[in-house]
Amino acid sequence: MSSHRKVAILGATGAVGQRFIQLLQGHPWFQIEVLAASEKSAGKKYKGACNWTMQTNLPKEIAEMNVVNCDVESVEKAGNVDFVFSALPGGLAGPVETDFAALYPVFSKASAHRMDPDVPLIIPEVNPDHAALIPIQRKARGWKGFISTDPNCSTIQLAITLKPLMKFGLSQVMVSTMQALSGAGYPGVSSLDILDNVVPFISGEEDKMESEPQKILGSFDGNRICPADFMLSSSCHRVNVIDGHLESVFVKLDDNPTVEEIEEAFIQFRGEPQKLNLPSAPENPIVVRKEPSRPQPRYDRDEGKGMSVVVGRIRKDPIMTAKYLCLGHNTIRGAAGAGILSAELMVTKGIA
Amino acid sequence: MSSHRKVAILGATGAVGQRFIQLLQGHPWFQIEVLAASEKSAGKKYKGACNWTMQTNLPKEIAEMNVVNCDVESVEKAGNVDFVFSALPGGLAGPVETDFAALYPVFSKASAHRMDPDVPLIIPEVNPDHAALIPIQRKARGWKGFISTDPNCSTIQLAITLKPLMKFGLSQVMVSTMQALSGAGYPGVSSLDILDNVVPFISGEEDKMESEPQKILGSFDGNRICPADFMLSSSCHRVNVIDGHLESVFVKLDDNPTVEEIEEAFIQFRGEPQKLNLPSAPENPIVVRKEPSRPQPRYDRDEGKGMSVVVGRIRKDPIMTAKYLCLGHNTIRGAAGAGILSAELMVTKGIA
Amino acid sequence: MSSHRKVAILGATGAVGQRFIQLLQGHPWFQIEVLAASEKSAGKKYKGACNWTMQTNLPKEIAEMNVVNCDVESVEKAGNVDFVFSALPGGLAGPVETDFAALYPVFSKASAHRMDPDVPLIIPEVNPDHAALIPIQRKARGWKGFISTDPNCSTIQLAITLKPLMKFGLSQVMVSTMQALSGAGYPGVSSLDILDNVVPFISGEEDKMESEPQKILGSFDGNRICPADFMLSSSCHRVNVIDGHLESVFVKLDDNPTVEEIEEAFIQFRGEPQKLNLPSAPENPIVVRKEPSRPQPRYDRDEGKGMSVVVGRIRKDPIMTAKYLCLGHNTIRGAAGAGILSAELMVTKGIA
Amino acid sequence: MSSHRKVAILGATGAVGQRFIQLLQGHPWFQIEVLAASEKSAGKKYKGACNWTMQTNLPKEIAEMNVVNCDVESVEKAGNVDFVFSALPGGLAGPVETDFAALYPVFSKASAHRMDPDVPLIIPEVNPDHAALIPIQRKARGWKGFISTDPNCSTIQLAITLKPLMKFGLSQVMVSTMQALSGAGYPGVSSLDILDNVVPFISGEEDKMESEPQKILGSFDGNRICPADFMLSSSCHRVNVIDGHLESVFVKLDDNPTVEEIEEAFIQFRGEPQKLNLPSAPENPIVVRKEPSRPQPRYDRDEGKGMSVVVGRIRKDPIMTAKYLCLGHNTIRGAAGAGILSAELMVTKGIA
Repeated sequence: MSSHRKVAILGATGAVGQRFIQLLQGHPWFQIEVLAASEKSAGKKYKGACNWTMQTNLPKEIAEMNVVNCDVESVEKAGNVDFVFSALPGGLAGPVETDFAALYPVFSKASAHRMDPDVPLIIPEVNPDHAALIPIQRKARGWKGFISTDPNCSTIQLAITLKPLMKFGLSQVMVSTMQALSGAGYPGVSSLDILDNVVPFISGEEDKMESEPQKILGSFDGNRICPADFMLSSSCHRVNVIDGHLESVFVKLDDNPTVEEIEEAFIQFRGEPQKLNLPSAPENPIVVRKEPSRPQPRYDRDEGKGMSVVVGRIRKDPIMTAKYLCLGHNTIRGAAGAGILSAELMVTKGIA
Repeated sequence: MSSHRKVAILGATGAVGQRFIQLLQGHPWFQIEVLAASEKSAGKKYKGACNWTMQTNLPKEIAEMNVVNCDVESVEKAGNVDFVFSALPGGLAGPVETDFAALYPVFSKASAHRMDPDVPLIIPEVNPDHAALIPIQRKARGWKGFISTDPNCSTIQLAITLKPLMKFGLSQVMVSTMQALSGAGYPGVSSLDILDNVVPFISGEEDKMESEPQKILGSFDGNRICPADFMLSSSCHRVNVIDGHLESVFVKLDDNPTVEEIEEAFIQFRGEPQKLNLPSAPENPIVVRKEPSRPQPRYDRDEGKGMSVVVGRIRKDPIMTAKYLCLGHNTIRGAAGAGILSAELMVTKGIA
Repeated sequence: MSSHRKVAILGATGAVGQRFIQLLQGHPWFQIEVLAASEKSAGKKYKGACNWTMQTNLPKEIAEMNVVNCDVESVEKAGNVDFVFSALPGGLAGPVETDFAALYPVFSKASAHRMDPDVPLIIPEVNPDHAALIPIQRKARGWKGFISTDPNCSTIQLAITLKPLMKFGLSQVMVSTMQALSGAGYPGVSSLDILDNVVPFISGEEDKMESEPQKILGSFDGNRICPADFMLSSSCHRVNVIDGHLESVFVKLDDNPTVEEIEEAFIQFRGEPQKLNLPSAPENPIVVRKEPSRPQPRYDRDEGKGMSVVVGRIRKDPIMTAKYLCLGHNTIRGAAGAGILSAELMVTKGIA
Repeated sequence: MSSHRKVAILGATGAVGQRFIQLLQGHPWFQIEVLAASEKSAGKKYKGACNWTMQTNLPKEIAEMNVVNCDVESVEKAGNVDFVFSALPGGLAGPVETDFAALYPVFSKASAHRMDPDVPLIIPEVNPDHAALIPIQRKARGWKGFISTDPNCSTIQLAITLKPLMKFGLSQVMVSTMQALSGAGYPGVSSLDILDNVVPFISGEEDKMESEPQKILGSFDGNRICPADFMLSSSCHRVNVIDGHLESVFVKLDDNPTVEEIEEAFIQFRGEPQKLNLPSAPENPIVVRKEPSRPQPRYDRDEGKGMSVVVGRIRKDPIMTAKYLCLGHNTIRGAAGAGILSAELMVTKGIA
């Protein structure tokens, strides 16, 4: 069966929407058919509706596409689509995604449905088996489509590094983040707020980081997800960096592995996307750098085309078991790339 | 007895040396008599030997002073001094400070002698009683003078916030730092290394942060310092900020105080400098900001003329007891201001 | 006659409004009586209506003041004021300032009325005699009050440096600017637009820079301003700097003075504010730095409490006559400080 | 005849040397055979001798190469090379390049020999005919090899835009630059000097910009270069940008062309590298952007793989004829890429 699909992007003019467009250029399976955004943008050509902030040029054929309103009727009128990527802002995403999910698979970057019990919160390398929630969701809600969600950007990269540590008996995680500006969208953070400064608060971020990983790393018992039972504490901060969240992580591992064992677990880690050789899967989900001052956002965020998480400075911790730094590209692995990889997984599994 | 003193500054051309000069302008007690630096600078006028990077203009009379070599003979030839501030780089400081201490009180910002058992590691608000090591040191070493040291810049502000928490049974501290560029001296960090970036490593910093606080918060038993028995783990990172170290702190407190009790402990905290009304003492050693996104380096580093530590976001922690952020000006409270306040304390106590 | 005055600030919550509040703290003559802003802010306490971005703390008594709507009735209801500072955005300023001017002197930072033939465009050091337009304006418009305007921020500092060059036969000026972020207000420029970047366009800025200086440096013939007859070309660019516009200036001077003569003209320049010893007048309107790499925004913007223009690198030009750099604090000398100095001048002259 | 060549890079560990290595990865003609650098680096593996600051990873085979000293004997001992790229710093380059030129073609980025009358100062799109100096140079100096130089980074991009304007009767050029940090090498500019700042001085830069373009755009009369007779004035400034020099240019054109005619001249401009389809030649030497706020360093520096110059905001000038902005990647088109393109040209012409 062909894996070719036509897709709509909801919230196509925002920072994550732009990243979806950029990453889907030349994608072997997925073709952008419809661009949808808010009423303010609807009716305009994309180039007139969007302040394009990607480093690569706006593709010409995308520039000339008409933007339509973010509702099922408008999208259906604009083209036949197989499924939908949602890059909608939080508040708006809830009801709009529900409307679409009645008819179409929805791969959502929004937080609205992440913690719904019947909605999978997927990282394809970490918990592909959670896709088993989808038939349950469809049946319960009477939908032809479904909603599959990606975690928060700062959660995804952390959870990828926690997965190979689970076997050591992970019981506690403490994390302090240094997050990039693009995580706040566009225009997002005012230059006057961040130049020569750090903003030690990101609204809602700590709550997401402290609740999502347990669901992601939980187990599916045939009916529902049983959350993993480690505890997590986070402190989230914004630094003057364009892309790439850096996280200082301290973990308690009951089996007390050595630094070498932890490093080996990171390096050996592979998931289903690697086995299935999915188009957007990085060769290594986790890349370990051994230089004392890595990972660094500017140098490491594009590792694996932005889909690898880079880990460094793994060392013993005098209080917990170990500490390390991890870095991920927040709008690729942490957002648009995550959604595309999830869709690739679901297509391969025959779900979307 | 008069508290007027004539001082020499060793390492006068570096970033901390410049800050000493800036802060001593108009000081009611201390007058700069001699400026000493490396051989490269010796023999030049200060304005020709130094790349002045303070925001305030280089004072004219300082600009015209001759820089002498950093040895006792050169300094004595240049003027009569009562004591010495040392802003020397680590490697050099050890033997030079020892030479001077045979004859003069030395207030040192360098790390060389900090952990010597008979050398006090002083924060005047925190452990003024450790000055009692000085007669022991003098006797043991046969010195007319002595060495008193200031802790590492990232340690000072942390230790000030830990002091009022000791009464709650402090047992564990975990801290992730976001440190300013000026902490690396001048020229220090290359602009190409830090623009759009974070450097997650500062050589030697984690070791200092994990060992100095226990000495500072230890108790003097009449002969020596018995280190405090809490454990500390740190992860240190450099961010693109001129001045002001920001630290994300997690503490375990055995008495499990409420957020309000912790906040009250910070706000009520006063030390000997406040009681003695020392010239450089801030009214409040700790200032608590209640806005959700404070403290921020650019807005809060100058609180109390750079001598207050600003604390914010005090909240319960799901793993430890509480977490909070603290911020201090790394070259004022964390360096030159620390030395000056120590000297003021010792002069008042009749030791220097 | 007393120079004490009660003032209202229109547009009090914006970046320039905040600077007015900061600069008027402790002002010997002027006292803030009413804070007015848009409907969105009206009815709130100032601390709740404003995102305070000044480095100094928000004064407590200001924080508790109620913000009222920007119309005459609301302001009069809130207090008795002698005159009004307007920090309103361009579009809004036109009719609102006209309403107030019917009854009160209005010192405006807005561009709306700058080029009105009967409205003076004042820099107190440069063209204080243009105040003679005010009785003409009052008579023509039947107003009890009047409007006096300050030039655009990038124009003010340039015009101050051009004034002492007029005597050499100024005929051409070419200027390329490197302007600070605060010139765009708050939130203004997105951090994603300016990090690791320059934005070579500022809407409307080149037009203002190319037309205002001729009016400012023109002569009053008893009825109207005859524009100065030099030509000016500008190119305006935004750089990643918080405060302080830097301008690269090339001038053609028909008398072909030497570099020393030009430098001397800058250094000797004094205006009426210096003669009258006005509270906000800097001792030197122009400060010349001789170091090869000055002026620099971070080091020189606060010269003369932000009211001096700093000039450097005066050198012969192979095409024109000379080239130099000038720097001014765009929200002090270029905005709020300019308005306050104008008001001080008018009060002293008995006009306001 | 084959165009395959083995090359040595002199100054291989510096910023420009690293860029040479990066750009030569996968080059169809040129293969890196020897890496040479200062005595400090000689004898080490490249990975240990260099602080790699390129965004792409250090190629593994390069990492393991041994660095040799920058003299003919050491290079010859390390491998057989056909020619040499020199990325040496100014002072050192003079005699070292002369030594190599006795035996090998030397393509030099250094300023040492640029203004030698018998040394071509080449931009392949602009003055490929100046290669005719090489036989004259060889004969005069008795060399088997030769020296060919690339202009200063800020000159190259300017000269490329001036070339198509020559036909309009170019008589005057005034330029203010906003130059990137990488132009100063590594570590180069201290972060403390440039954060929240502009440094309005670059040593030697204005002299180079004011003398090189006339040689580049001059004509070869069979024996020597007759400089073009336009006048040029520059003011050079460093801004907080990693890569990409932005220049604000004002030109006097005696034929007074329209904006459309100038734009068309830029767009239509092609040179010999495009006709010869050289491997590193961009399709368009000049790309014109029509958006009001372009070109911008972060978005436009990589146009044409960093080999295109991007022009924008072409407009009439009230004093000269026209003004515009141009932007080029200073370490690709302005340095390593320039040298490689020159070498490709010379290989194709049968000279190297």
